[in-house]
Amino acid sequence: MAHIKLQDGLPGIRGPMAFSPQTAKPLNALAEVLLRDDNNTLTRGERELIATYVSSLNDCFFCQNIHGAIAGHYLDYDINKIDAVKKDFNATSISPKLKSLLSIAASVQRGGKNVTPEQIEAAKNEGATDKEIHDTVLIAAAFCMFNRYVDGLATWAPEDRQFYVNRAKQRAEEGYIDFDLYNVSVKS
Amino acid sequence: MAHIKLQDGLPGIRGPMAFSPQTAKPLNALAEVLLRDDNNTLTRGERELIATYVSSLNDCFFCQNIHGAIAGHYLDYDINKIDAVKKDFNATSISPKLKSLLSIAASVQRGGKNVTPEQIEAAKNEGATDKEIHDTVLIAAAFCMFNRYVDGLATWAPEDRQFYVNRAKQRAEEGYIDFDLYNVSVKS
Repeated sequence: MAHIKLQDGLPGIRGPMAFSPQTAKPLNALAEVLLRDDNNTLTRGERELIATYVSSLNDCFFCQNIHGAIAGHYLDYDINKIDAVKKDFNATSISPKLKSLLSIAASVQRGGKNVTPEQIEAAKNEGATDKEIHDTVLIAAAFCMFNRYVDGLATWAPEDRQFYVNRAKQRAEEGYIDFDLYNVSVKS
Repeated sequence: MAHIKLQDGLPGIRGPMAFSPQTAKPLNALAEVLLRDDNNTLTRGERELIATYVSSLNDCFFCQNIHGAIAGHYLDYDINKIDAVKKDFNATSISPKLKSLLSIAASVQRGGKNVTPEQIEAAKNEGATDKEIHDTVLIAAAFCMFNRYVDGLATWAPEDRQFYVNRAKQRAEEGYIDFDLYNVSVKS
């Protein structure tokens, strides 16, 4: 049971967002520009993968599954490949640049001061731009917020991982802003 | 030196915000509604104190000093009393309700799942509403983002703590939205 009274049937972050629409608005706007804005040399799939990886490090079931499914939708990865990235991204076929950015994201997850000049240098040597490094740090930081928002209020989330896979295409197409916060119930 | 090329002379989060105005907009909007919105039974000073405490737990020099100074401005606390709250809030004269909320904020800082039903019950017994608990969790979560954004990019911040005290009144009056992101340089 959630720590505060939330509308029944809203999965994960949707419960608190319906409880507090005035904070949901900037939160969704942030996710939209960070993860979906087209003026970005990181693909939407790569950005969702960074979000997924940080959410798995924070052990947030809802976030790692919904963003993992969206990343899988964009990248054409099945759930096993997403899980492989979460488990040991260095052992997967993702690009060396993305590996260097996931390493930075992992440091941000532990705390901002853990990011080292050597990690930044390695990312730049793989071709990462200042904007890509900036966005990686902010995506990782933002999911340290979203994950804590979801779990700090003990929100409900469907246990069946296929639920998230089934929703990924629609979420990818609709984005994080243009959907009705009050029309996302899955229980009723 | 910051990990990416930032405009010289912008303290703390202002550097990355000038680098990326499109993400600065929702970040500032979030801070504005969370910390300053008048439709809230937590005072602005109490909310800034939660932000300060979480920033000190995350060891973020810039955030704990600027928000500590703003909290001090609202609450009429000098820097020593703000430091006392950061060091051991239970030993200070803040209200039992605020103590119970700071305890929840500290759990969120470690990770959302650390918040216990007993902490929520204790806060409710001190009169905390669902909205106050929601806002405490989201303020704590948001500063786990802001702190990582500031330190994950190794931003510059003035070392003199009086700098922050001197800016607090103006920041409190202007808020987090209606100021010129490009006109906050202190070096030039």
